[in-house]
Amino acid sequence: MLRVTVVGAGGYIGGELLRLLLGHPEIEVAGAVSSRFAGKRIDGVHPNLRSVTDLSFCAAEAVGECDAVFLALPHRVAMTQMDHWIQRSKLVVDMTGDFRLDDTEVFQRYYGEEHLAPQLLADFVPGLPELYRERLRAADLISVPGCMATAGVLALYPLVAHDLIDLRQGAQFDARTGSSGSGATAGPANLHAERSGAMRVFAPTRHRHEAEISRHLGLAAAMTATGVEAVRGVQTIGHATLRPGVDERTVRRAFREQYAKEPFVRVVAHQRGIFRYPEPKILLGSNFCDVGYALDADTGRLTVIGALDNLVKGGAGNALQCFNIRMGLPETLGLTFPGLHPL
Amino acid sequence: MLRVTVVGAGGYIGGELLRLLLGHPEIEVAGAVSSRFAGKRIDGVHPNLRSVTDLSFCAAEAVGECDAVFLALPHRVAMTQMDHWIQRSKLVVDMTGDFRLDDTEVFQRYYGEEHLAPQLLADFVPGLPELYRERLRAADLISVPGCMATAGVLALYPLVAHDLIDLRQGAQFDARTGSSGSGATAGPANLHAERSGAMRVFAPTRHRHEAEISRHLGLAAAMTATGVEAVRGVQTIGHATLRPGVDERTVRRAFREQYAKEPFVRVVAHQRGIFRYPEPKILLGSNFCDVGYALDADTGRLTVIGALDNLVKGGAGNALQCFNIRMGLPETLGLTFPGLHPL
Amino acid sequence: MLRVTVVGAGGYIGGELLRLLLGHPEIEVAGAVSSRFAGKRIDGVHPNLRSVTDLSFCAAEAVGECDAVFLALPHRVAMTQMDHWIQRSKLVVDMTGDFRLDDTEVFQRYYGEEHLAPQLLADFVPGLPELYRERLRAADLISVPGCMATAGVLALYPLVAHDLIDLRQGAQFDARTGSSGSGATAGPANLHAERSGAMRVFAPTRHRHEAEISRHLGLAAAMTATGVEAVRGVQTIGHATLRPGVDERTVRRAFREQYAKEPFVRVVAHQRGIFRYPEPKILLGSNFCDVGYALDADTGRLTVIGALDNLVKGGAGNALQCFNIRMGLPETLGLTFPGLHPL
Amino acid sequence: MLRVTVVGAGGYIGGELLRLLLGHPEIEVAGAVSSRFAGKRIDGVHPNLRSVTDLSFCAAEAVGECDAVFLALPHRVAMTQMDHWIQRSKLVVDMTGDFRLDDTEVFQRYYGEEHLAPQLLADFVPGLPELYRERLRAADLISVPGCMATAGVLALYPLVAHDLIDLRQGAQFDARTGSSGSGATAGPANLHAERSGAMRVFAPTRHRHEAEISRHLGLAAAMTATGVEAVRGVQTIGHATLRPGVDERTVRRAFREQYAKEPFVRVVAHQRGIFRYPEPKILLGSNFCDVGYALDADTGRLTVIGALDNLVKGGAGNALQCFNIRMGLPETLGLTFPGLHPL
Repeated sequence: MLRVTVVGAGGYIGGELLRLLLGHPEIEVAGAVSSRFAGKRIDGVHPNLRSVTDLSFCAAEAVGECDAVFLALPHRVAMTQMDHWIQRSKLVVDMTGDFRLDDTEVFQRYYGEEHLAPQLLADFVPGLPELYRERLRAADLISVPGCMATAGVLALYPLVAHDLIDLRQGAQFDARTGSSGSGATAGPANLHAERSGAMRVFAPTRHRHEAEISRHLGLAAAMTATGVEAVRGVQTIGHATLRPGVDERTVRRAFREQYAKEPFVRVVAHQRGIFRYPEPKILLGSNFCDVGYALDADTGRLTVIGALDNLVKGGAGNALQCFNIRMGLPETLGLTFPGLHPL
Repeated sequence: MLRVTVVGAGGYIGGELLRLLLGHPEIEVAGAVSSRFAGKRIDGVHPNLRSVTDLSFCAAEAVGECDAVFLALPHRVAMTQMDHWIQRSKLVVDMTGDFRLDDTEVFQRYYGEEHLAPQLLADFVPGLPELYRERLRAADLISVPGCMATAGVLALYPLVAHDLIDLRQGAQFDARTGSSGSGATAGPANLHAERSGAMRVFAPTRHRHEAEISRHLGLAAAMTATGVEAVRGVQTIGHATLRPGVDERTVRRAFREQYAKEPFVRVVAHQRGIFRYPEPKILLGSNFCDVGYALDADTGRLTVIGALDNLVKGGAGNALQCFNIRMGLPETLGLTFPGLHPL
Repeated sequence: MLRVTVVGAGGYIGGELLRLLLGHPEIEVAGAVSSRFAGKRIDGVHPNLRSVTDLSFCAAEAVGECDAVFLALPHRVAMTQMDHWIQRSKLVVDMTGDFRLDDTEVFQRYYGEEHLAPQLLADFVPGLPELYRERLRAADLISVPGCMATAGVLALYPLVAHDLIDLRQGAQFDARTGSSGSGATAGPANLHAERSGAMRVFAPTRHRHEAEISRHLGLAAAMTATGVEAVRGVQTIGHATLRPGVDERTVRRAFREQYAKEPFVRVVAHQRGIFRYPEPKILLGSNFCDVGYALDADTGRLTVIGALDNLVKGGAGNALQCFNIRMGLPETLGLTFPGLHPL
Repeated sequence: MLRVTVVGAGGYIGGELLRLLLGHPEIEVAGAVSSRFAGKRIDGVHPNLRSVTDLSFCAAEAVGECDAVFLALPHRVAMTQMDHWIQRSKLVVDMTGDFRLDDTEVFQRYYGEEHLAPQLLADFVPGLPELYRERLRAADLISVPGCMATAGVLALYPLVAHDLIDLRQGAQFDARTGSSGSGATAGPANLHAERSGAMRVFAPTRHRHEAEISRHLGLAAAMTATGVEAVRGVQTIGHATLRPGVDERTVRRAFREQYAKEPFVRVVAHQRGIFRYPEPKILLGSNFCDVGYALDADTGRLTVIGALDNLVKGGAGNALQCFNIRMGLPETLGLTFPGLHPL
């Protein structure tokens, strides 16, 4: 059994990771660190884990050496604690925003402050198996991308990899997200009476995750973000311009080829059925990222769509997938829940 | 009192119009035509009108002459009945898609069939007071635009009118809509268990309303449409490219000037507050279309946002506003409900 | 014009009252008191009032004499301020829980603390026009009942008034409520991610409003309360035992007679249609309380159902109805919005 | 591997069972019968099973012998096909309402028609492991109870089993349910625009499931049922009268003892936390039924609460649990998904 610690285990993404770890046959939860809840039972905070675990949260000091540490801390806290955790664990998987960008200037532009551990940036491998699987096999530091970035990157990546779009035109993304992305300590805008049924544009331009898309795809991405009525679930719609002469068949083939062997990416672009394009609600709890596309043949404009559960493939599940890869375990271990329909 | 008939009164938009007409001090409802419900009480179908009216639906044949007829028919039916209603009423206000485009070829491209009354197209004035108020004062035939078209047009119009964007770049819109837009006879995709909490991309390219935006703004618009969790409410996010040198102050002034005297358009682009940009949920039941904008100064990319209640400013309310203008009544008569918060 | 002040105007019920007052033809808003928001614009907090009012919140000290003061304070604060407001206004309408019970012992049992102004209790007339209209005409102090109490009382009252049920058996009520009842400063249980889609039993026994039902109906009421997915809306289902020999016809007649002349109570117990029994969602924004019933003829058990918008007939609207009565105005003035369908 | 067939596999409960069977290590899906979808891919109807299975639906005639058949047919169809399936499979697990009552008169009273296979009724063992586990070990015919009945029975059973309540007083239940219970072919009342946010009382008295509660608990149960905003999830609140002298400690002990060894029933009645009582939303996808209680010590009135996912513990999951018992497999096999939080 591999001994694993979750730091920031009292939040939504920490709780989701605990759910996955407790169901993983090769993992033993060595510690669930929470400064807010240390000493309290885990299932008092994450009620879905009642009867699943009797463990309690602990303080950071109580954690000894372990095989992996996952950080589910608030943004900006991870970079202050990173040295500490590196010394306690050979593998650190960071699920915060702190190590997602490799350029300190870009970081400053998007996060509005200086990076506090710039010397570590180059050592982090992006936790995106579909693009960086080989590097992940040997990584000691992994930074899991933002949920909307993952959906956006995976939706457009086949076209970039197959050189089918005009990179100079960049790409415009509109992301929609559920409320769990704001976390368990969210402010007044996440009060149910305000958030329910809303279509709240909280980032009309320059959502942070656009910087990650730009980095991974090598083009200028722009992203808006809107909170819609959902607790879990992210969907990104992206727009790019095809190179002249690229037709739908070529696009389809690029998607199929790119993801033929990926265990957690499905191409969804159907002629019939209720959910013909990627739909977050059938992915909740699952580690899938569904991707799809549609073409306006008259104009050469391409729409790509990505959907995932922000707490799973957009966070804890993706982190565990990276861990499986790194540890040489079957990549899908503990991640096979298929999602529910209807839900 | 002006005698008014609603044709297609059993649907959602017909019911919403009945609600508005029954509360209008200068209007008498002369007939509520429904082929499905003729003979049945109106409040059996529209339960919010219990104790408001004792009227029943009637058949089309029962309608005599009246001052205005509003058509809330299914798309494609209006154009087969238009001659009939023109003979019974000096003013016909059509709320369907049949007379929204003035070019039969464009109609065929977007609706997939030939127009059956092309000779009438030129006579229809678009029911969009913010662009065509003067023409509406004398109109006998009015075609109310599509809900997403209205939100998209009003959000981008100030920039077009003030010549601030590069028209050659076109504009990309992503629209989100509630389920009431699919009507009271919607199919399996609108079953609650399927639709609830979904982000269903039903038009990944070329939603019909993009043709209306292109017509009214004189640029190539592209629109995707997604059904999100809401019953009422439409929001469109649009992207365009500013002309070189246009700054935020100029954009802000264009919006303020354009809509300073408009009773039902509010500019919402604030620094603080929960709803800093146009939010449909605070508009439900109201005739407002809120519009806003945000600028990425580094790239010159502009985001515009429009929001409205699809059954009111996106349909029945807008139709009544046009009627008020046409009849020389105060424009806001019967349309002053401000919306609810929270909701 | 009558000059009216709202105290606690920054909350949900205060905001709803402002909406109603600003649309009332005989009222001038003299002050909108908020300790939290004094000096800030009202429409910054209540965004549905954008373009409806330019007023700002003020401090309590800024309020001079006025014709009526409405208190929308947190529970327990109203009783500490009551003397102050009585001196500034001939009429005080309290929308809090502080003066809803006339027995200090019962108050202590349900609120867990001593009443701080017991000498005033006897002077308050319950703000329930359907039971106390004549007393309200001369009232100087009015206490508006709790939202679930109003729905429960109005649903069962015809049977009590017509002596059709066995009072000794008491009555069991199960209430369901939306999240707005918890107010704009609600805690973690009202975070969207927790509250969305929940059926959260927050009072499995002895909800406070049961004491009000017991008082007004003269029987022992028991009430549970559950938060369900809705922002506005309350529904109570009640169970009582009919006296031997009472049949459905007698029950129906009691309901019809009791509410034949009531402007805001409708009897809804139909054989057909989607909403055959009282449904909150078609009442949102309206001042209606719909009531209905069903009989199990085999057992003599009766189910009664009441529904309303907790912020309107369950709060601000009911308060305004009382005000209209007290001031000799038409009872429905400013309260005629019928509600929306679908919503 | 045990060969299993699902009949009525195109509906919601059939789809949920397929999800569970496909993840069960000892089961091979031998057939997924659907008259509507025969020949079509399963994942075209149940999109959460994309990449999980390549199977297609088949016709009833295509099914050969198998180890078990599960019927997820519409009510009233199962009893016409039962003989057919009994001949093809040693074990038949019926998830419809047709064999839930053992008294043909009671059946007629609640279902409004004569039973067509009365001779089989006595052979069915109720599919409720918590009450009938030993009989299930040898059962060849199993009838899974209704979702609200299961929640109601399990919530009150400890008090009946420990003889703590006055059976003569009967028990009153109020059930709340999500929309998936109406199935994939539900009518206009389940259109999203109507059902969303509703609290629709569809059974103000005598919901069918009350007859099952009466049968299993040996008292006169009465049940109302309301559709609230949720897709999955059922919650029942029940009221009964304790015998004189029974205190909270005794009640607590009865619950703890009754369910100490049950793998899928948890007692939830806490002093702290957001979800102190049984909450369906944290159970979605899981096979748990959470039960809780609260006591009004002054009156001896007891409230019990049960919650479950209607498609899992209220249907397919419960059926699979019964199958595991019958086949001598570990009872929890394939049923260990713990549910999600938040959701």
